[in-house]
Amino acid sequence: MRQINSSISVDCVIFGFDGTSLNVLLIKREQKNGIEEKEDYKLPGSMIYEDETLSQAAYRVLAQTTGLENIYLKQLHVFSDPERVRGEDLAWLNRFYQINTPRVVTVAYYSLVKLNDRILTYTMRKKAKWVDVQSIRSLGLDHKEIVMCALETLSRELMQLHIAFELLPRKITIRQLQNLYEAVLGVEIDNRNFRKKILSSGYLIPTNEKEQGVAHKPAQYYIFNKTQYEREQKSKFRLNFIN
Amino acid sequence: MRQINSSISVDCVIFGFDGTSLNVLLIKREQKNGIEEKEDYKLPGSMIYEDETLSQAAYRVLAQTTGLENIYLKQLHVFSDPERVRGEDLAWLNRFYQINTPRVVTVAYYSLVKLNDRILTYTMRKKAKWVDVQSIRSLGLDHKEIVMCALETLSRELMQLHIAFELLPRKITIRQLQNLYEAVLGVEIDNRNFRKKILSSGYLIPTNEKEQGVAHKPAQYYIFNKTQYEREQKSKFRLNFIN
Repeated sequence: MRQINSSISVDCVIFGFDGTSLNVLLIKREQKNGIEEKEDYKLPGSMIYEDETLSQAAYRVLAQTTGLENIYLKQLHVFSDPERVRGEDLAWLNRFYQINTPRVVTVAYYSLVKLNDRILTYTMRKKAKWVDVQSIRSLGLDHKEIVMCALETLSRELMQLHIAFELLPRKITIRQLQNLYEAVLGVEIDNRNFRKKILSSGYLIPTNEKEQGVAHKPAQYYIFNKTQYEREQKSKFRLNFIN
Repeated sequence: MRQINSSISVDCVIFGFDGTSLNVLLIKREQKNGIEEKEDYKLPGSMIYEDETLSQAAYRVLAQTTGLENIYLKQLHVFSDPERVRGEDLAWLNRFYQINTPRVVTVAYYSLVKLNDRILTYTMRKKAKWVDVQSIRSLGLDHKEIVMCALETLSRELMQLHIAFELLPRKITIRQLQNLYEAVLGVEIDNRNFRKKILSSGYLIPTNEKEQGVAHKPAQYYIFNKTQYEREQKSKFRLNFIN
C-alpha cells in the first residue's frame, strides 16, 4: 500500500473560459460521516503519497476527480498557515485520509483552459462542476482564498495580450475580448473606451467579415496581430543587448 | 517543546552583489557524527515547526544561522522529488533533527542584497560565508540545484532594469553595470556592444563626473533615468485601457 504523507497536500485551480464567463472547476466534498449531510464544494486536491512529487500528485488527483489530463499545471503558491485547516475541517481531513496530523501545508497549482465540448464531456462524466468565479460565496476548507489568489495571478498574466488571445477563437469581435477581461476582473468596462484603446494599440487587424444572424448591429471580426506584438515585445529593453 | 514537522523544510538562497561578483550565502553543515570530519557547505535552512508558516521558518533560520534580518524573502520553488535527499544525506538529516522520515520536501526562498559592511559584519559574526556563485563546484544535499534554479530566476528578473539598478550605487560607470550582468549570467559580454546598446536605450543620463585616481582612462559616471523608464513601462499595452 502506498504510504500517505500526512503533512502535504496539493490543490488545483483550473479556470475555464466559455466565451462569456470565467469558471473554476470544483468537486463535491465527500463526507465520510454520512449522518449530517452538509454538502460543500472544494478544489480538486489530495494529500500526497510519499513516493510522488508534488506535480505528480497534482496531475494524479486532477485525472482521478475531474477526468482532465494533459493540462499544463503551474505552481501557484504554498499555503502554510498552521491554522488554515482546523476544527471540523481538520477532523474531516484526518478521518478521510485516515491520518492524524495537526496541520496541512498545501501547494496550489493552477491552469487556464478554453472550455470546449471535449473538456465538458470529461468533467461531466466525473460529476465535477464548472462554477462562475464571480458567483462563488464560499468553498470548503480555505479554498476560496486559494481561488482568489489564483485569480489575482491570472489577472496579472492576462496583461500579456498573447495569453488572453490563446483563450479566444482566431476571429473575434471586440465585445468577446471585452467579455474575457470583464469575466476575469469581475468589473464592467466602459465599451467606448475599451474599443478606442484596444484599436489604438494596433494589435487588432480588421477582417472583411461581420457577425451573422444577430439581432443587434453586426460587429466586425478582428484577428490578433501576433507578429507585431511579438516584435514589439522583443524590441523592449532586454538582455538581448548581449552580443 | 516545539514540535518539528518531519516532512517539510525551508532553504534560503541569499545572493549578494559586491560590485564585481555575485555571491551566495552558505553555512557549514554541522556533522553531528564527529568521527568522520567531512566538511561541506549548504544553504541556510531548517525543518519547519508545526506552529509556524513557511516564511516564518525561513526568516527564523536565516537570522539564527547567518545573523541576517529584515531581508525580503520571496518564494522561489518547491523541490519535491522523493529522492532529492537520500542515503547518507537522509541519515544525517534524520539524526540531526531526531526525526525518522523517508523524504523531505523543501520550499526554497530567495533574496538579493547589496553587499555592504553592515551585512558583512552580521554574517561574519555567525561564520556564514559569501561564495562567488560561479566558483561553486558542489554543495551539501541538492543545494547546488536549488542555487542554480534561483540564479535562473534572478537572471529573468534582472531583465527589468530597475531591479538591476537597485543593486548599484546611484552613480555608475557602464563598466559597473556590465559587471553585474556578467556576474549574474556567468558570461563575458562584449564591451563595445554593451556600451552601444545601453546608451541607445536612453535610460542612462550622463553626469559631468568621471572616475578619479584610476590607472586607466577615467570612465564617465551615469545615473539611471528612472522616471523615463517607469513612464515607458506604464505606457506599454496594459490593462490600463480600463476607464
